[in-house]
Amino acid sequence: MRISELARAADIPVATVKYYLREGLLPPGRLTAATQAQYDDAHLRRLRLVRALLGPARLSIAQVRAVLATMDAPEPDVFATLGRAQHATASAAEPADPADALALIARAGWRAEPDGPEVAGVAQALAALDAAGFEIGAENLEAYLEGIHRIAAAEIANLPDGSAEEAVRYAVLGTVLVEPLLLALRRVAHQDAARRRFRTAE
Amino acid sequence: MRISELARAADIPVATVKYYLREGLLPPGRLTAATQAQYDDAHLRRLRLVRALLGPARLSIAQVRAVLATMDAPEPDVFATLGRAQHATASAAEPADPADALALIARAGWRAEPDGPEVAGVAQALAALDAAGFEIGAENLEAYLEGIHRIAAAEIANLPDGSAEEAVRYAVLGTVLVEPLLLALRRVAHQDAARRRFRTAE
Repeated sequence: MRISELARAADIPVATVKYYLREGLLPPGRLTAATQAQYDDAHLRRLRLVRALLGPARLSIAQVRAVLATMDAPEPDVFATLGRAQHATASAAEPADPADALALIARAGWRAEPDGPEVAGVAQALAALDAAGFEIGAENLEAYLEGIHRIAAAEIANLPDGSAEEAVRYAVLGTVLVEPLLLALRRVAHQDAARRRFRTAE
Repeated sequence: MRISELARAADIPVATVKYYLREGLLPPGRLTAATQAQYDDAHLRRLRLVRALLGPARLSIAQVRAVLATMDAPEPDVFATLGRAQHATASAAEPADPADALALIARAGWRAEPDGPEVAGVAQALAALDAAGFEIGAENLEAYLEGIHRIAAAEIANLPDGSAEEAVRYAVLGTVLVEPLLLALRRVAHQDAARRRFRTAE
């Protein structure tokens, strides 16, 4: 299909598609004439992915480029490929002492790269709670580890590992686009639990 | 204590404390002379809360004001007070059809205000996933509802309900400051689960 058809199929302005092409977020089409290129379904899939990552997922151009590079030139094994993709979507954490984060992760029985951005993210979150003088009780902490383990274990068990492109797409979109869903569900669940606890007569 | 001592105790610049006073985020001290006021521990607690809400929790001045108003003039019952505090911290969701969100919440067996910002947040998150062409499998969805229920139920069960101030503080900080922690833990748990699934020989 031509660029105008590609844009229409993805419901994206042609100017945006051209911008993605210039930024290297979309591979060039197959030239059929000096000023005309043909695009295929792989372009359409890539276009939709780029839009989701830059839009609702709020990744930067550089982060999207890193995700796409992982898809196009994956590591020899799935674990390393996923790790690279996951690092690409991590937001820069302010430096915080990782001791509490590592203790919490050890308590969960999880193995993590001690210097990776994931552990740094936990450390930063714990530092912010600490600065606010907010202490998480032991029962809540237990619930966090169990609840999150339930979620993450299912996600990895259901991760498709046929092609690197598909695995990375699932992992990246499943991480960043599901985050707002989990937080929104938690607020609804709070509402329900508070109603049960404080409005028992209803 | 004087304003300079209050600022030092909270480790916040005096200029910031004065700014909070002007914005009505901190109640005035007790005047002991025409230009001198005394502050107490309640001011210090409030100061730390305001800083956490404006800082790591990234609420707006207007949101913080709404949270504080709920603390200072709570509703007649805890459930309504918590609801007001929760609404104050909701970010504006782009309008999205709530049908899928309501179906998901019904499937969880949760009761929610159909027109509230919490349901709107779920609807917006589902719309973003849909726009990206990302479908959440039934097993993952089940894990999300169970995992989130485990977390939210513990949080509400452990919510202190002695004073409205304490309940709101716990609910608001526990919601907004724990959000980054849960997301960061999920990424660590992904790493652990991926290692177990894809590096079985290790």
